[in-house]
Amino acid sequence: MADRSKVVRAKGFRWVDVPIRVYKESDDLYKDVTRQTLLGNGDAERSLNFEMRYFEIAPGGYSTLERHGHPHAVLVVRGRGEVQLDDRTAPIAPFDCVYVAPDAEHQFRAAADESLGFICVVDRERDRPRPVTRSAPR
Amino acid sequence: MADRSKVVRAKGFRWVDVPIRVYKESDDLYKDVTRQTLLGNGDAERSLNFEMRYFEIAPGGYSTLERHGHPHAVLVVRGRGEVQLDDRTAPIAPFDCVYVAPDAEHQFRAAADESLGFICVVDRERDRPRPVTRSAPR
Repeated sequence: MADRSKVVRAKGFRWVDVPIRVYKESDDLYKDVTRQTLLGNGDAERSLNFEMRYFEIAPGGYSTLERHGHPHAVLVVRGRGEVQLDDRTAPIAPFDCVYVAPDAEHQFRAAADESLGFICVVDRERDRPRPVTRSAPR
Repeated sequence: MADRSKVVRAKGFRWVDVPIRVYKESDDLYKDVTRQTLLGNGDAERSLNFEMRYFEIAPGGYSTLERHGHPHAVLVVRGRGEVQLDDRTAPIAPFDCVYVAPDAEHQFRAAADESLGFICVVDRERDRPRPVTRSAPR
């Protein structure tokens, strides 16, 4: 049992042996976002019921405006930006914490001149996000 | 639904409206540790199946050496220290990530001259920790 514990070493906002992935494959409604799954990726750390991921949004970039049934627990660790939570928008900076409730429309956006990096924890088993399209009926 | 989303604002390594609590009531085998539950505390954020907590250990302090059936996902965000994982000890610093496997003996220790602050995510429903006493048979 013991040997499964581990330290995942940080080098800046990259982690040793953790690949940098495309933010998502299912849509292209975002700009300049990368994803790294620190713990709970695939078959790793199977005892975890959740995944710990790190997202980084380059200056001027944003995540997909979307909603889903599972909640998010977010901790900002780098840079500046804002989060949209339904009809509200709030500035965020280290080490603000964001709770995205089930089915809330949400989007993370980096500042124009600064990256935004945050940890996002989600259930391992979860529903798929649905992009929100403003031009479509809601 | 929308109004349940929220931003918990950071002021240094304290958070607005988040109380600073005693690390644990069940033993006194630790030194200079505080606990803040950022998300998922009690009835808050009931949709979360996990809690996001922040622990801070003052210089020279340490958490209880213990084990339990539930795993930990940890992200260091402040200072320096080390973690014991069964028979291994590793230095930790921002933004190293630590996976504590089920039933692994573990202890977090701050450096002599620096605090150690880290996020620790756990299942909301979980078993109680059991302190490890070195003088007792193992």
